[in-house]
Amino acid sequence: MLSEVVASAPGKVILFGEHFVVEDQPAIAVAISKRARVRVKPNDSGKYCIYSRELDLSEEFGLHESRKQSPLYPIVVAARAVENRAGVEVGLDIYIESEIPPSAGMGSSAAVAVATVAATSELLELNLGKEDISNIAYRAETIVHGKPSGIDNTISTFGGAIAFRKSEGFLQLEADFKPVKIVLADTGVPRNTGELVRRVLSLKEKYPQIFDPLYYAAGRLAVEAAKLIERGEFEEVGRLMNVNHGLLSAIGVSILELEHLVYTARRAGALGAKLTGAGGGGFMVALCRKEDTDKVARELEKIAKRVIVGEISEEGVKIEKKV
Amino acid sequence: MLSEVVASAPGKVILFGEHFVVEDQPAIAVAISKRARVRVKPNDSGKYCIYSRELDLSEEFGLHESRKQSPLYPIVVAARAVENRAGVEVGLDIYIESEIPPSAGMGSSAAVAVATVAATSELLELNLGKEDISNIAYRAETIVHGKPSGIDNTISTFGGAIAFRKSEGFLQLEADFKPVKIVLADTGVPRNTGELVRRVLSLKEKYPQIFDPLYYAAGRLAVEAAKLIERGEFEEVGRLMNVNHGLLSAIGVSILELEHLVYTARRAGALGAKLTGAGGGGFMVALCRKEDTDKVARELEKIAKRVIVGEISEEGVKIEKKV
Repeated sequence: MLSEVVASAPGKVILFGEHFVVEDQPAIAVAISKRARVRVKPNDSGKYCIYSRELDLSEEFGLHESRKQSPLYPIVVAARAVENRAGVEVGLDIYIESEIPPSAGMGSSAAVAVATVAATSELLELNLGKEDISNIAYRAETIVHGKPSGIDNTISTFGGAIAFRKSEGFLQLEADFKPVKIVLADTGVPRNTGELVRRVLSLKEKYPQIFDPLYYAAGRLAVEAAKLIERGEFEEVGRLMNVNHGLLSAIGVSILELEHLVYTARRAGALGAKLTGAGGGGFMVALCRKEDTDKVARELEKIAKRVIVGEISEEGVKIEKKV
Repeated sequence: MLSEVVASAPGKVILFGEHFVVEDQPAIAVAISKRARVRVKPNDSGKYCIYSRELDLSEEFGLHESRKQSPLYPIVVAARAVENRAGVEVGLDIYIESEIPPSAGMGSSAAVAVATVAATSELLELNLGKEDISNIAYRAETIVHGKPSGIDNTISTFGGAIAFRKSEGFLQLEADFKPVKIVLADTGVPRNTGELVRRVLSLKEKYPQIFDPLYYAAGRLAVEAAKLIERGEFEEVGRLMNVNHGLLSAIGVSILELEHLVYTARRAGALGAKLTGAGGGGFMVALCRKEDTDKVARELEKIAKRVIVGEISEEGVKIEKKV
C-alpha cells in the first residue's frame, strides 16, 4: 500500500439536451478545466475520516457505518467499494477540495466520487481501469442522487465531450476545443431540480401533440451539434446553443435572470449562450472564441453573482501525486 | 350618394404562430378594442384629399394618379376600387385617425384600409358585404406590403378571433373573451420584419432536421390553443403563449428587452406573455384575467416605452355615422 495519493477529476457542463434527455433524447456534455481534488492516506483509527474544504465539514465514519443523511457519505461508499474490491479494510483520511461550484449542475459530487475512487484504487495498488472507476463512482452517486443519468461520472472520468442517450449509452466525441473557452455565470437564484423536472414532464404529458415534436427537435439539435463539434464549427455550435436555450424557455425552465445573462453574453460576442442544467435559476453557459472570452466575462461580472471562465478539458480523472 | 360616412375597424394581435405561419403552420389572431376611424365625404375638386392625424400628413391625388411611394397611397387604392365597383368617379375627402400604433404588427394599415373601403362603400350606397370589404382592403394592402398573409384585413373586417393557415384559409373561433384583457407593451426597439423573416428562414433551411419538427410543434400548439380558446380555458391559453414565446426565442427573434417585458408581465400575474409579431423589437402581448390587468399594466409601465390595455373585441368593421 502507498502512503498517500492525490487524484483529480473534472466537472462538467451540459451544452445540449438537459431536460429532453429524461425522455430519451440525446444530450451533449463536456468536461471543464475546473476540478475536484481528493487526497487519500491510510490511518490507524479504523475509521474513514473525511474532510471537505468547500463544505467546511469534517466527519468520521466507522468502516461499516451507514449514515445516508451526511453529505460526505457518498465518499465513504466510494472508498469502501474500492476497499471491498481490493479485499482490504483500512481506515482512511480523505481530504477533498474542489473548484467546481456545488449544486450547480456541474457534476461536483460526481467529480469528487470519481477522484475518490481513483485515489483509493491507486493507494491500494488495485489498478482499476477507467470503466471500473466510472461505474464504482456511479454506484456511490446513487446514494445521494437517486438514479442519476450517469453523464456526470462518465464525463468526469473520461474528460472531453460526450454524447449521451438513455437507450444507447455514451459516445465520446472527437474534437479539438482549443479555439474556444466557456464562461459560466451564476444567477444566484437557487434551483429545485426535482420540482422543475416534474413540472416540465406534467406539461409534456398534458400536451403530447406539442411536446413530442418539440422534444424530437431538441434531440435532432443535439445530433447536429455533435457533428458540428467534431468538425470544429464552433460558430454553428453557438447558434444551436441559442436555439436550445429557446426550447428550454419553451418548456418553462428559464427565468428573467437567466435571460439577462444569456443576452448579455451574446451581445458581448459569445458564439452562443444558454441556461445549463435544470434551469429555474442556477447557471448560464456561454461558448466563446478564445479572444472574446475576457470581454464576455467582464460584461457578465457586472450582473452575475459569480463568473467562472474555463476551458473544455480533454483531461478526465488523473493521479496527480503518489507517495 | 350620402354626404358623410364614418367607419371604424379594429387592429389585431397575433396570439399564436407568427413566423411559423410563413411555412404553412396555423396561427391565431384576435381583434383588439383599438380601432382606426375613417371619415369620407364627397368633394368637388376631382381629387382624393387624404389626411392622416397620426402621420400628421395631408396629400392630394388625382383620380387616376399612381404614387406608390406615398404612405397614403393604399387609401387611394382602396377608395378607387370601391368607386370602380360602383361605376362612379368622384373626388373624396378622407380623414383618418387611429388608436392602433403603426408599424407594430397590429394591423394598423389594414384597419385603415378596411374602414376606408367600408365608409366609401356606404357613402356610395354600394352595400358591399364583409367578404368583399375584406378582399378589396387586401388588394389595397398589397400595394404597401407586397403579399401579406391576409390575416390583418380578415380580422379587422370580421373581429373576434381567427385561426388561419396558408393552405386552408380562415376559421372564425367561437369564444367569449369577457373574462380576459390584453396588455401590450412596447420595447421601443424598432423592428425590421423582412430581414428577420429572411434570417429565420435561412436558419430553418440549414437545419431542417431540427426546424421541421420545431415548426410542426408550433403548429400543433396553435391548434391546441384554438380548442382552449373556444372552451374559455384562458389559464391554459396563457401557458401555451409562454411555450410559443420560447419557440420564438428558439428561432432567434426575441431580444433582452422583450424578455424583460415578458417575465415582468408573468410575475405580475399575467396568464401568459409572449412577443407578438415579427420580434427583434416591437411589442409584447400579455393575456390577463380582467382583475389582474391593472397590476400587470402598472408593472410594465415602469419599463416599457408604451403600454396599451385593451379587450379582445368581437366587433369587426362597422359604420359609426352616416349623414
